[in-house]
Amino acid sequence: MDLTKSSAEDLKALHVEAAARFDGLRGRNLSLDITRGKPSADQLSLSDDLLTIVKPGDTNDENGTDLRNYGGLVGIPEARRLFAEYLGTTPERIIIGGNSSLAMMWDVISNAMTYGVPGGEGPWRDQNPKIICPVPGYDRHFAICERLGIEMPTVPMTPEGPDLDAIRALVKDDPSVKGIWCVPKYSNPSGEVYSDATVKALAEMETAAPDFRLLWDNAYAVHYVGDAPAEIADIMAACEAAGNPDRAIVFGSTSKITHAGAGVAMLASSPANIDDHIEKITFAMIGPDKINQLRQVKFFKDMDGILDHMAKHAEIIRPKFEAVINALESDLGGKGLATWTNPKGGYFLSVDVVDGCATEIVKRCADAGVKITPAGATFPYGKDPNDRNIRIAPTLPSVEEVASAMKVFTAAVEVVCVEKLLSET
Amino acid sequence: MDLTKSSAEDLKALHVEAAARFDGLRGRNLSLDITRGKPSADQLSLSDDLLTIVKPGDTNDENGTDLRNYGGLVGIPEARRLFAEYLGTTPERIIIGGNSSLAMMWDVISNAMTYGVPGGEGPWRDQNPKIICPVPGYDRHFAICERLGIEMPTVPMTPEGPDLDAIRALVKDDPSVKGIWCVPKYSNPSGEVYSDATVKALAEMETAAPDFRLLWDNAYAVHYVGDAPAEIADIMAACEAAGNPDRAIVFGSTSKITHAGAGVAMLASSPANIDDHIEKITFAMIGPDKINQLRQVKFFKDMDGILDHMAKHAEIIRPKFEAVINALESDLGGKGLATWTNPKGGYFLSVDVVDGCATEIVKRCADAGVKITPAGATFPYGKDPNDRNIRIAPTLPSVEEVASAMKVFTAAVEVVCVEKLLSET
Repeated sequence: MDLTKSSAEDLKALHVEAAARFDGLRGRNLSLDITRGKPSADQLSLSDDLLTIVKPGDTNDENGTDLRNYGGLVGIPEARRLFAEYLGTTPERIIIGGNSSLAMMWDVISNAMTYGVPGGEGPWRDQNPKIICPVPGYDRHFAICERLGIEMPTVPMTPEGPDLDAIRALVKDDPSVKGIWCVPKYSNPSGEVYSDATVKALAEMETAAPDFRLLWDNAYAVHYVGDAPAEIADIMAACEAAGNPDRAIVFGSTSKITHAGAGVAMLASSPANIDDHIEKITFAMIGPDKINQLRQVKFFKDMDGILDHMAKHAEIIRPKFEAVINALESDLGGKGLATWTNPKGGYFLSVDVVDGCATEIVKRCADAGVKITPAGATFPYGKDPNDRNIRIAPTLPSVEEVASAMKVFTAAVEVVCVEKLLSET
Repeated sequence: MDLTKSSAEDLKALHVEAAARFDGLRGRNLSLDITRGKPSADQLSLSDDLLTIVKPGDTNDENGTDLRNYGGLVGIPEARRLFAEYLGTTPERIIIGGNSSLAMMWDVISNAMTYGVPGGEGPWRDQNPKIICPVPGYDRHFAICERLGIEMPTVPMTPEGPDLDAIRALVKDDPSVKGIWCVPKYSNPSGEVYSDATVKALAEMETAAPDFRLLWDNAYAVHYVGDAPAEIADIMAACEAAGNPDRAIVFGSTSKITHAGAGVAMLASSPANIDDHIEKITFAMIGPDKINQLRQVKFFKDMDGILDHMAKHAEIIRPKFEAVINALESDLGGKGLATWTNPKGGYFLSVDVVDGCATEIVKRCADAGVKITPAGATFPYGKDPNDRNIRIAPTLPSVEEVASAMKVFTAAVEVVCVEKLLSET
């Protein structure tokens, strides 16, 4: 029954029922949190052998360099080799950093603001820079831009990736449009996987800015909940083939593979961009924690080791995603109050409710003891113009907790959206 | 015999002897490196228990937080407590970071350039900023300023610390003088320890800039080669007592205590500065590697653990410092060609030779297989106006290698300085 077509009388009856159900759930004094994309403790425990895998007397890299000492700005050779394969590139095109890919993104963009990038015309901050943000998207990406004073034109997501026509219209004539945020695989939060055609078009499209950058946050390269990781086209190769070799800057990390706070981050790009990045970070650091890089390599050994490990993550996460989808389908299916994505990987699901209801739904859930990511967080400046998108992050709690939280959520969706429909009749 | 007062004939004879000695050393095909302040392998091995000290099932902090997961921007509570004692402050005034105090310095100054600091009048970059550099000093400090376009007026070092009258003259009327680099204990490279009077004066002096900062790089807080670590006055307490509570920003790390690439860094300051710093770094990171913080705390247990550990470092480093001093005294003592410091801690010794000779001495040493820090590195822009200061870094090689390198060095000093004296007769 599509409630958007129901009579006021039917809606009132439904509201009485849903409100009673919601009040019953609220009375249970829940304390549940589905706000952040954090691994659960049992996921983290999969990597506990990491803690003691590098032992005294075993702290040299394959070239004999003592990793306990200073230096090694680009990362250790065996880590560059393994994670080059992980990101689909070659070792000389990758830098292995500290524990945070977000920090590498900040470094890239804040340095671009102050110093510019190869092929450009000086500091971005002198050029009224804009970075395109597909929405819904990742709040941390938006926060970097907001902090640095970068404008954020938005484009909608489609099942194939961000809307290409909308992007082309933005980049074609305006040289101040300097880049676009992309989470190409299991996009945050809606889970889309960029199609080959999207990757090719982003690599090839004409941009007024000579220094346009695809900020390619491949955060979920092997983080699947389906049968196997999705394959995406090689963005760096596509950019090179298109005559835009410096366009893509690819980020990744092992934060959601090993230990979230103690993994390693990586940046891959063209030789010109890598040289430029090294020159920039030389002023700010001596070198990353190379012992921790060795830990990750010893733990996985090779790319098959990473894939075997991620199959274990998938087994833990899959039932949580299923619990979300099951709740949405059984409680809200066919009612016309919400649409949602059914991602095959990543850390999030995304729900669009009746326009104008998202903030109130999140508030009601909080009143009932269920914390949900603030409405609007998936849009620049925290402002969803339609107040309709809500991000669900089911990985941290147990399956049972996810199911309990979703009961509250779907009841809140029903109550709030029906109130909204009633107010409009 | 003071050679600066010798006859040309005596100098010529001496030069023949010294040149022959130098050529003999050069013929030995040495390959020695006393350029960088790196710990030696046996120092690093003192901390190898660190590698496996955090074990599976033992990864929560004292509040029960799972340190394997994201978060914890300010550091774990037990690390804040231990390193607060280490830096002489209280836990709420310290942030424990990643593996690099240099990165924290970069963050502080680059953020000050873009956003300003508490008590100031906006971004430093709009105010033609200057940071005072005591010379000789640390090349990495100078590199940060040079990169960020900050002018570097210099002041000379004295045995009590940087020359206070020179500093006062710079800060008194010019609000664009925003700070001064200080290595208060075992100053890099000359090893001075700031006197209590110097600390007090720096805290109390009037500055035209309302947002003047003491960039207090306490890199060698417990790194002694004498009998015990020197004591210095508490700069944060002195600033607070003087009514300048936000003046000091204190940096430190365990890089030269545990593993140089895999230690933890720290920043201590007033509540206003700490809050400001947290707000700034929130955009660039989720949190530091908290597991590695736990490693350091478990390894030391308490401040006594740190001091016991540093006594072992002192035993390894002391003979190397002595080898340098012995070579300088026996080969160059009383000749008037060079003066030097005899630091009781830190990682460096500093030699001043006859004006105009430092670059040539370093070059001759390189020709003979002994790498020495480039002349000028201890001055902003790598330019020693008198071309006389040379930094000696004896910690990385063995005692025997230090002694061999110093034989080459002292011979090169004698040859080059005598040539210089001859050219002026």
